[in-house]
Amino acid sequence: MRFQIEAAIQCSAALPEEGIRILEKAVQDANERLFRKGVPENVDPVEIGRITAWKVRDDQILLTLESGPYTRVHDAIFRFRKQLASLLGRLRIGLRGLEVISYRVLLDEGVTADLVPRLPFIRGIAERNGRVEIDLAVTASDLENRLPDRIVRLIEEKTQARQYGGKTEHWQLLYQSESRPRIYTGNPTDELIARKWIKHGSSRGQWIYAPQAVQLFRTFERIVEEEIIRPLGFREMIFPKLDTWDVLSRSGHAKGVYPEIYYVCTPKTRDPAYWEDIADYFKVTGEVWVEKIRERIDGPIGAMCYAQCPSFWPFVQGETLASDCLPIRVFDRSGTSHRYESGGIHGIERVDEFHRIEILWLGTCDQTVEMAEALHAGYSRVFNDLLELEWRAARVTPWFMAQEGMVGACGCESVGTTDYEALLPYNESWLEFQNVSVNGDKYPRGFTVKIQSGEECWSGCSGIGLERWTAAFLSQKGFDPAQWPEAVAKRIEEIPDIFRFL
Amino acid sequence: MRFQIEAAIQCSAALPEEGIRILEKAVQDANERLFRKGVPENVDPVEIGRITAWKVRDDQILLTLESGPYTRVHDAIFRFRKQLASLLGRLRIGLRGLEVISYRVLLDEGVTADLVPRLPFIRGIAERNGRVEIDLAVTASDLENRLPDRIVRLIEEKTQARQYGGKTEHWQLLYQSESRPRIYTGNPTDELIARKWIKHGSSRGQWIYAPQAVQLFRTFERIVEEEIIRPLGFREMIFPKLDTWDVLSRSGHAKGVYPEIYYVCTPKTRDPAYWEDIADYFKVTGEVWVEKIRERIDGPIGAMCYAQCPSFWPFVQGETLASDCLPIRVFDRSGTSHRYESGGIHGIERVDEFHRIEILWLGTCDQTVEMAEALHAGYSRVFNDLLELEWRAARVTPWFMAQEGMVGACGCESVGTTDYEALLPYNESWLEFQNVSVNGDKYPRGFTVKIQSGEECWSGCSGIGLERWTAAFLSQKGFDPAQWPEAVAKRIEEIPDIFRFL
Repeated sequence: MRFQIEAAIQCSAALPEEGIRILEKAVQDANERLFRKGVPENVDPVEIGRITAWKVRDDQILLTLESGPYTRVHDAIFRFRKQLASLLGRLRIGLRGLEVISYRVLLDEGVTADLVPRLPFIRGIAERNGRVEIDLAVTASDLENRLPDRIVRLIEEKTQARQYGGKTEHWQLLYQSESRPRIYTGNPTDELIARKWIKHGSSRGQWIYAPQAVQLFRTFERIVEEEIIRPLGFREMIFPKLDTWDVLSRSGHAKGVYPEIYYVCTPKTRDPAYWEDIADYFKVTGEVWVEKIRERIDGPIGAMCYAQCPSFWPFVQGETLASDCLPIRVFDRSGTSHRYESGGIHGIERVDEFHRIEILWLGTCDQTVEMAEALHAGYSRVFNDLLELEWRAARVTPWFMAQEGMVGACGCESVGTTDYEALLPYNESWLEFQNVSVNGDKYPRGFTVKIQSGEECWSGCSGIGLERWTAAFLSQKGFDPAQWPEAVAKRIEEIPDIFRFL
Repeated sequence: MRFQIEAAIQCSAALPEEGIRILEKAVQDANERLFRKGVPENVDPVEIGRITAWKVRDDQILLTLESGPYTRVHDAIFRFRKQLASLLGRLRIGLRGLEVISYRVLLDEGVTADLVPRLPFIRGIAERNGRVEIDLAVTASDLENRLPDRIVRLIEEKTQARQYGGKTEHWQLLYQSESRPRIYTGNPTDELIARKWIKHGSSRGQWIYAPQAVQLFRTFERIVEEEIIRPLGFREMIFPKLDTWDVLSRSGHAKGVYPEIYYVCTPKTRDPAYWEDIADYFKVTGEVWVEKIRERIDGPIGAMCYAQCPSFWPFVQGETLASDCLPIRVFDRSGTSHRYESGGIHGIERVDEFHRIEILWLGTCDQTVEMAEALHAGYSRVFNDLLELEWRAARVTPWFMAQEGMVGACGCESVGTTDYEALLPYNESWLEFQNVSVNGDKYPRGFTVKIQSGEECWSGCSGIGLERWTAAFLSQKGFDPAQWPEAVAKRIEEIPDIFRFL
């Protein structure tokens, strides 16, 4: 990896003879001393930033720098300017802006052009001696924000992801329950529709649930609450259901969630006069004037709730938590989650709009891992003894590693996700209906949350999808309450048919 | 109101002499007989559609028609074409398309140009003898869809709305409770923030609720459930929380809700490659590439839940309900509602994202009105005896009449909304914290729902805003549970502080 910059430093006046002498000495000193600061002794000098050419033209100093990975040219040039400013200050000459004339990065051998991101900062891609060279369109402030480093790191990540086989998820069986007698082998969605317990909503992957289906949801909710959440000390909060880009940026979702979210836009103004023609269009045609609305809305400002726990974090953002209140244990069940799933016809086990109890905890690493284990024990008991399900648990690549194209082993073995899968007898497949994740310091770092003791703050989350619990349960246990496990049957009131259609 | 159209009817061949004689007779017959069909006897002939000029040019018949409000020119021309087609059929000449050359409407005296909607169908606006004339750009299929009628009706509505003073809401006091001793005069939002029971979410008008605040919400929810909803036979359903345009069109909200909704857009594709540069942009800059995302999303397809009950209706859409299951009584509390409220700092009594129990019932007119009365009685008892609030109830213009610019008396006196308002001692204002609406046949008509007996199907709805109940209660009763009415105090468990910030 080689970096080369050509840049001009603007001076407050043309350099006099003495100024040029000062400049010449400063260049020599920078190459011999200044740029080597902080670089390990044994590094090949060719890898270190170096001014390879300079020229003075009127009140401008033109510089060319080259580097390998040490004291990269964008760091070197600012270091040099600072040094030079103090030297020229004696002549009452000030240094003004830095103009980047060109910035080129020669990528390592083996990196192919298609790994270079298509971004406005990439002005050109060329090949030189069998290696790819990129020409960056960057400003001085982009350099201060270390944009070249981030571009190079991104290309390295893409190269690595390709080498290690892309985004294949790691999957390792942790537990498999005993098998259960087959009571029912139908597709529960078909029967739910036939019984009019559910009906398609107006949007894709969206259902309207009649009282019978809601009774099942609420029964599972009560089991979770009575058997797991309350005994483990979790308290109910309400997390927002519209996630701004700020939340999705800090949570890391902005790294890759775009294909799967429902975007939210806001009106440019609340002034009814601004919207009058659009209202009139509907009154006249009976059609909503979508194309015109597109011009009148701002954003998108973010997305409809996708992962449920990110919007909790502004509650503790920037705070230091007292050690004696840890682990914090909360849950939310105040609304819907929305994912733009692949099209086609799916049952209630795969929907765009779904209902989930989201459990969240944070504390020290030990507390976080212990809570994940306690939850696992609780879930296992519920699935085995109360719901009497045929299920299994598997360790999988954490979502954020999968989404960011990270693969392989994480630094800490405790970070990871356990998926809970239930057998669907009607098609002999396994449905992921639940998970538990230990997210390490990912969220506390993103939202700057610290703990009193100075230990690293960790967090975990666990999502309980009510549609998927229902799909798993009905697939295995069918629709006859007499066949249901007692723990469910005793909690269900009668299931009334309140609608009768002719 | 005068209509004038110039149009050309394309024939399959040039008209021979005999064809022209047939045409001449047909015009005479149309003016004397055909256009008068269905018009009352005493109408001035000048108000009725009439062919005022005709000409044959090659294989085209050019026609000019004029009318007042009877057998308007767009109806007259289709009636004439049908008649002529059968007459010319004898000569084996067929009639093809109808091309509208011009369509003008001379509006009534007193209608000013600013009342004409700004729509693509309005090609020009002129003045003639002190009256406004509009020139419509319409096709034959627009005429078949009766677009001119809708435009004229819209202009009439706007004229009327201006005459009757615009959208002023009617407000009539129905009930005022006894006054209550002032226990507390603070602004509860300030104290909720200070106690860290709530904290601003990342989006505007959005709060995150800590366990203490949620306890209050859930307590009010239980009171509503135990004291009102269950005894009156309501059952829980789950209504979707993303409303498509189809739902908002049928519910009538598409007539005017645009300034206040959060719009929802979908990704153009789920293909990760399509989104890779946007993900890369974030990884490199730490910023979400909003401008580029705008180009990659479809829609808006609708809005985040605004009114909560419209998305129920697809469940019964197109159905006929058996009389013996009426009145249908359901409620939903499965998620958030979102309104783009005016900016500035508001407390929890005015938010963009809020939590509401939505109650909905449908049946005959009598059943619907009776249920509204039963709910009113239930609410009154809860506010007076259980919450011990200082409150009042007022009859107001129904939302849909207000939104559509309709004013004055509705056809049926039972249709209407009752607002429940609570006194906020800290600023001596009244907060609308609840409502009950009888919506007449509005929804059943929009979603084509019928009832077995053939009677008109009516519906009602009632929204219970948990933020607003909380604001009303805390404003009057303060934060000391010892001062709270027993019905609330006994239902609240202890209120734990689970977070401790340094």
